[in-house]
Formats: sequence, C-alpha cells, structure tokens
Amino acid sequence: MSERLVVIGADAAGMSGASQARRMRGAHDLEIVAFERSTWVSYSACGTPYFVGGYVPRVEDLIARTPAEFAARDIDVRIRHEVTAIDAAARRVTVRDLEHARDLTLDYDALLYATGARPRRPAIEGAELAGVHELHTLDHALALRRVVEARPRAAVIVGGGYIGLEVAEALMHEGIATTVVTSPAAVLDPQLDTDMGERVVAYMREQGIAVETGLRIACLAGADGRVTGVDCQADGQSARFPADVVVLGLGSVPEVRLAEAAGIPLGESGAVSIDDHMRTGVEGVWAAGDCAEAYHRISGRPVNFHLGTIANKQGRIAGSNLGGGDEAFPGVLGTAITKVCDLEIARTGLTEAAARDAGFDVIAETFDSTTTAGYWPTAEPMTMKVIADGANGRLLGAQIVGGSGAAKRIDAVAMALWNEMTVEAMVNVDLSYAPPFSGVWDPVLVAARKAADARARN
Amino acid sequence: MSERLVVIGADAAGMSGASQARRMRGAHDLEIVAFERSTWVSYSACGTPYFVGGYVPRVEDLIARTPAEFAARDIDVRIRHEVTAIDAAARRVTVRDLEHARDLTLDYDALLYATGARPRRPAIEGAELAGVHELHTLDHALALRRVVEARPRAAVIVGGGYIGLEVAEALMHEGIATTVVTSPAAVLDPQLDTDMGERVVAYMREQGIAVETGLRIACLAGADGRVTGVDCQADGQSARFPADVVVLGLGSVPEVRLAEAAGIPLGESGAVSIDDHMRTGVEGVWAAGDCAEAYHRISGRPVNFHLGTIANKQGRIAGSNLGGGDEAFPGVLGTAITKVCDLEIARTGLTEAAARDAGFDVIAETFDSTTTAGYWPTAEPMTMKVIADGANGRLLGAQIVGGSGAAKRIDAVAMALWNEMTVEAMVNVDLSYAPPFSGVWDPVLVAARKAADARARN
Repeated sequence: MSERLVVIGADAAGMSGASQARRMRGAHDLEIVAFERSTWVSYSACGTPYFVGGYVPRVEDLIARTPAEFAARDIDVRIRHEVTAIDAAARRVTVRDLEHARDLTLDYDALLYATGARPRRPAIEGAELAGVHELHTLDHALALRRVVEARPRAAVIVGGGYIGLEVAEALMHEGIATTVVTSPAAVLDPQLDTDMGERVVAYMREQGIAVETGLRIACLAGADGRVTGVDCQADGQSARFPADVVVLGLGSVPEVRLAEAAGIPLGESGAVSIDDHMRTGVEGVWAAGDCAEAYHRISGRPVNFHLGTIANKQGRIAGSNLGGGDEAFPGVLGTAITKVCDLEIARTGLTEAAARDAGFDVIAETFDSTTTAGYWPTAEPMTMKVIADGANGRLLGAQIVGGSGAAKRIDAVAMALWNEMTVEAMVNVDLSYAPPFSGVWDPVLVAARKAADARARN
Repeated sequence: MSERLVVIGADAAGMSGASQARRMRGAHDLEIVAFERSTWVSYSACGTPYFVGGYVPRVEDLIARTPAEFAARDIDVRIRHEVTAIDAAARRVTVRDLEHARDLTLDYDALLYATGARPRRPAIEGAELAGVHELHTLDHALALRRVVEARPRAAVIVGGGYIGLEVAEALMHEGIATTVVTSPAAVLDPQLDTDMGERVVAYMREQGIAVETGLRIACLAGADGRVTGVDCQADGQSARFPADVVVLGLGSVPEVRLAEAAGIPLGESGAVSIDDHMRTGVEGVWAAGDCAEAYHRISGRPVNFHLGTIANKQGRIAGSNLGGGDEAFPGVLGTAITKVCDLEIARTGLTEAAARDAGFDVIAETFDSTTTAGYWPTAEPMTMKVIADGANGRLLGAQIVGGSGAAKRIDAVAMALWNEMTVEAMVNVDLSYAPPFSGVWDPVLVAARKAADARARN
C-alpha cells in the first residue's frame, strides 16, 4: 500500500516539495495531494508588481505550472480547497471544498505545511474603503491591474518595503501620480541601512515618485465609501495625501494559525520551528517556505524571511527528505535584490544596524564607484556598503545601490559571506574585469579593501 | 640615506607597485624611479579596442595617471627611457634615453621588473606590408584609429582571442566589413571550450562579422607595398580574404628578454619565476604583471596570464612588500570577461579540455537559461557551463555566454572556486532573485545542481 503525502499550500515551497518528492518516489509508492485555498498554484509572487505595471502582459506568464501539469506528474493539486484543521495525532486533515461548500477529511502519512505568509494588516481606520488594495496574491494583482487600467488620478502607497517600491514603480510606469508614505527615515528599512535607503529615496524623487518618510499613518479618509486620501502624522503635524487608490504594503506575517491550532511548535521568530531537514516538532509534519523559520548563517539565529529563493530551496529539501533522501538546509543570508525604475538595489547578510544590535564590533565602509570603467560611455554610479566584524575581519553583510549591472554583484559577496571570508581575504580574489563591466578592481574588491584598511587603522 | 626603488615598465603592475610602495614609505625614506620606453604610462590596455571603435572618444580617457601626477606623489616616471641591461650583482641598470639618444646608469636597492608582454609575432610572409597592424599599446591604438577614420573597405583580423574579437567588434561598429580568421575550431580557444566558443562564432556571424575557423595563415598578400588580403589554407584548400587593413591578434608573450640576459630565472611557463611575495630568484629583484608567473589555484601550476587584474594585484603586493609589508599573493583562477557587440562572455578556472589534460575525472554540464525570469520582457538567452571534479565534486571552472547581465555572474562562481566549494555545496547558496535579474534559481545554482546530479548518476 502506498503512502500519502499531503501538502498544505500549492505555491513555491509546497510545490517544490511535492515535485521533488515525486522525482524521488514513483506514483505507486507515494500518493501526493496538495490543497490550495486560492485558484492559483505555483506562480511567481515576485512577478505580480510587474503584471500590475504592464511589464508582463499576461497573468499566465507568471504561472510556472498549472494543476493539469502537476496532474500529468501524478501530483493531485486541489484548488479552492482550504485545510481548516490538522489532527497531528490521527495524521488527518479536515479540508473545506470552497467551491461546493462542503468538508472532507483525508489521512496522511506525511504532511508538508507550506501555507506561506499573509499581509500584515494593522488596524487602520478606513482600510475597508473601496479603492484600498494590497498586493499579496495573484488575485490582488488582477484587481490592482483593473484599477490601473481605469486610470486613477493619484495613488498613495503605504509602506516603503519591496512591494511598496515595486508597486510605486508600476503605477508611475503607467503614468499615475504616486506617493509613497512610510514611517522609517528611509525606504527599505530594515533591509537597508538608513544611509543606503536615503539614496533610494533621492533617486525615486528624481524619477517623480513622491516619497514621504518618517510619517505615521493616522487613518484613511473616505467619502461615499471610497477612499479619498491618507492622513498622516509626524512631530505633532498632520498631513493629508489625496488619493483615489491606496495600496497597503505593510509587510507580511507567517501564516501559522493552522499550525498553532494543531500544536505545531513555533519558534522565536513567530514562524514554524523546523530542523535543518525541515521537520517540525510534531512527528510526520514538515514545514517549508514563508511560514517556516530558517537558520541565519551570520547571526546564528532562526529568522523568518519571506523570499521565493528560500521557499523554493526549503521546499525542495523537504521534498528530498520526504522522498527518502537525507538533505540538510545550510541556512540563509537574507540575500535580496530589486529595482526601482533603473536603480538596482541589493543586500545580503546583516546591515550595519543589525550587526550593532547583535553586538558585533562593527566596521562599515561605503564606497562610491561606477558600474563599468569610469570612462565607459554607459558608466553609472554605484554605491557599495560593506559591513565587517572588527574583531576578526569577517564579512557580515553588504548593500548595493546603483545603475545597470550594479546589484547582481551581491551574489559574489553572498558567496564570500557564505564561505565566512574575511574582508582581508576578499581583497585579492580573482574577479573578472573588462571596461564595459567594471574597473580593474571590481567595486566588490575595493569595498572589501576599504573595510580591511579601516580595520588596520583601528 | 634613502633607499632607491627602480621600476622597469610604468604600466599596471609597475605603477601599482610604485604607488603602493609610496603609500607605505615616505619620499625621504624611499626614492622611486620608473622607466618606461613608450610615451604612455599607467593606461588601460583593455580599453584600447574601444578607443579604436569610437566608444571611448578621447585617448586621455584611458590614462589613469600621468607622469606629472606621479611626480606630485614623489614618483619619478621617465618616459622614452628603455632599460637595456640589469647588473643584478652591482644592483645597477643601464638605461637608454631614447629622446636624447644617450645612455645612463642608475644604482638601485630594489628593482621591480614589470616589463609586461609583447605581441606574439610568428614569421608570416607579408607582415611588413603597409596596412598590417597590431593592437598592444596605446600607440598601436592611435594608429589603428587613424586607419578606421580613413574608412577602409574590408578588414581581416588574424586571431580569435580577446583582442581579435574586441577589434572585430570595433571595426564592425564603425561600419567596416570585417572577417576574423583563426586556426582553432572556434574563437577564444583555449579560454573557452570549443562548444562554448562555437556559440560566440554563431552570434558573431548573426551580427554580420564573418568568422572563418580552422584556417592556417599562409601569408599576407600585397601590391605596391600595401596589404591586399590574407591567404589561408585548410585541408589542402586555399582561400584568400581580401583586405585593405589586417590586424594581427596572435596573442602575446611575456617580455623577459632583459631578465634572461640578467640571469633572472624564468619558470616553466616562460615568464619570470616569482614566489608569493613577488620576489624573483635574484636578490633585490621583484617582478609582477604580464612578465611574471602566477600560481594557479586550481591546477596548482605556475601560469602566465596577461590580464590587467592580475598585474594590478601583483603590482600592489610587490609594492607592499617593497615598502616593508608582508603580503602574499594568493594566486589566480584565470577569471576573464569580455563582450562582442551585445554578447557577454566570461570564464574562470579550468576549461573542460584543460581539466581533462590535467588528469581530472571531469564532469562538465552545460545549461541553457535566460538572463532574467523567462517571462521578463528583456529576457535574453544565456548558457552556462560548469566543470567539476567527478572524484570529489569540487568545482574546477565555469564559462558563461549570454545577453546583458549574463557574464558578471562569473564572479559568484569565481568566489565559489576560490573557496574550493563542491558543486553540491553550491546548490543551496543564498543568491539573489527578482524577476528582472534571474529566475528564482539563479543559473549559477542550476548549473551547479546539474553537475551534482551528473555526479550522482555516475
């Protein structure tokens, strides 16, 4: 008799896990059933802002695989099916068939909990008004695209994180007057240090995106049930930003409600606690992706990042182990990249602020350079910040803001960070050079040398 | 009394060394005199093809620092001064002042031999004809730029190396019908494996650059003292490629004649043998750059690459040690990057062919992907080849050919190679992802996984 794997959540982590388990074990040996409460499976959540902005014309372009394609690989994906309870002792899930409004139960031998994250929704007066949107799912993207096509006059994005910035670019790209309001002193906090985030703010303003930092959202104003603006406060002053569309981009939280109810232990980050094989604290239950923790290789702490890269890797490793393999997940650095218009932004490891909070004796050096040889006709500015441990020179993190070709350099730094290199050891690494690509000393090497020099001076 | 450092050759290695020695020791303590036989110092040799092609309009743009700027830093650079002999026992050089046609001698305490490389010039009948050029120095670039501005009808580039390809692009960019003829089966041999070089050939032909491979040059044909074409042979057949300008790009050899005459030992590569502190086998004599060897971290052999990256690093380390420091050069991987029109090309470590020659049990996997998420509007093809040691999984090298953003990914691979990672360990490294930059699994990770899977199958 074959075993049954049940997967909760049919997106990056869940379907990576299902696919990998299937690669390792045949259909006669392992039945795989995945439940998805939405109508969409296995899509690129990171691509949704670009669908909103019209860069990616068809929503189908964002879909990696359909339920039919999974079916052809003997993976039974049931959309519009929401798992409502896990009985871990009985190894049984209760599932609501949303289409037919009925419940069913299904026994499992192994369960992969891959419910992802949901938008953070602090109580904001007016959040229920028409014209207030968020962007977390493909359905949200479809709704927001319809709004864009109806040509609103003015949009306000509440929140300066990745989604906020990507939506701001999308709306500006479509010719909509766009304002970003955010409470920290700069955008992309805490992904970037404030000094680097301020460079992004300056660029966005140059591009015609209004950015208002240091503002606390008081409420959303409305008339006749429709949003008309965002009321903010700072230093006792208040300001209203008129808008006929508001997008809330206030981050996301791990979707752990079902796990909590089932007694699956959460970790200090608030996400499901897992070991390096993706096993939870409950026998037969595994977890992966945005709902689960990951070991941070630099801080040594469990963290909960919501990144497709981590979800895919954790899902694949869960699938390997569910399929009878023995693979450990080596942890994360928090490497991420995005762009706003033509400004590229990337980060890895700890920021200067996070490194100080973690108690490191921090060296932080910022270096202004160009994306190519300085004399190359398409040279654009790039700024790189390197954070190192003053005690032993070990690289702790880096951030890059710059023109075309700047940001993917973060991967070379991430590879150095992964290998626990010191900034001193990085200085002479044999990286590539030709005038259309960099100066003879790539900015990665120069930034490392600046940090090494700063250490030598101390 | 202050010591005196004499530098032979005032380009990348020599002036990096002089500058670093000066940073470490004041002018009262160390006198620095650099002799340069040409009229140019400290320029970007890698930028010269782009001056020829008109991308970089002013030759001054290629000059990092002038003799006057060095003088302001207490470094005495004497152009048009050719060192003609080294008396290592007496620690004295004989120098020809080319401007005034007279000789002088100068004693030194330390000598930095940084003579660079010179073009390889095999005996080819007709090489002395007018209209036959090479591109090794800034003077060559100025001459070739004048030729381009005179609008020749047809150019033939003899040689398919970096310089050959960059000059071919430059000439095509200026609207000159251009043919590259080369003896290997593809271009960029042996920097790339033939399968990867063939992709470059196919692209160049699409761009309208004729590429003729597998041809032996018989002679250059001429009339009235001017070149009229290139005669080639293959398989007993002969062919003539008409040309009113011919550029010979047949590689370069280390400039070691002066060292040989002075009894400074050469290594197995034919370049000056040095230790990891850049010391030659003769007391008081140091060497760096194209004229010197470097330790190859993968093959474990001394090699002689002519790359600005290595010259700058070796020069800087020589300067540190000459200045009283204690810095070891950790070796090279042979990382290099270039482009032809919009095709980016990069490589690091050993090719498949070189790895086989070195006796490795070779795993080689090639992976076709895109430079961004597949659905992103500017996605372009990229191909990555990974070479690994079948015995233990250790990464040995990689090659990349592809569209915008493809090639600088080699730096992440170089960083992995530097740290002696296995392809298995690379699979889960936390590299960056967003749709405008890559798929969720960066091609670097997928290529590593393909190699790991190939090992698992074996």
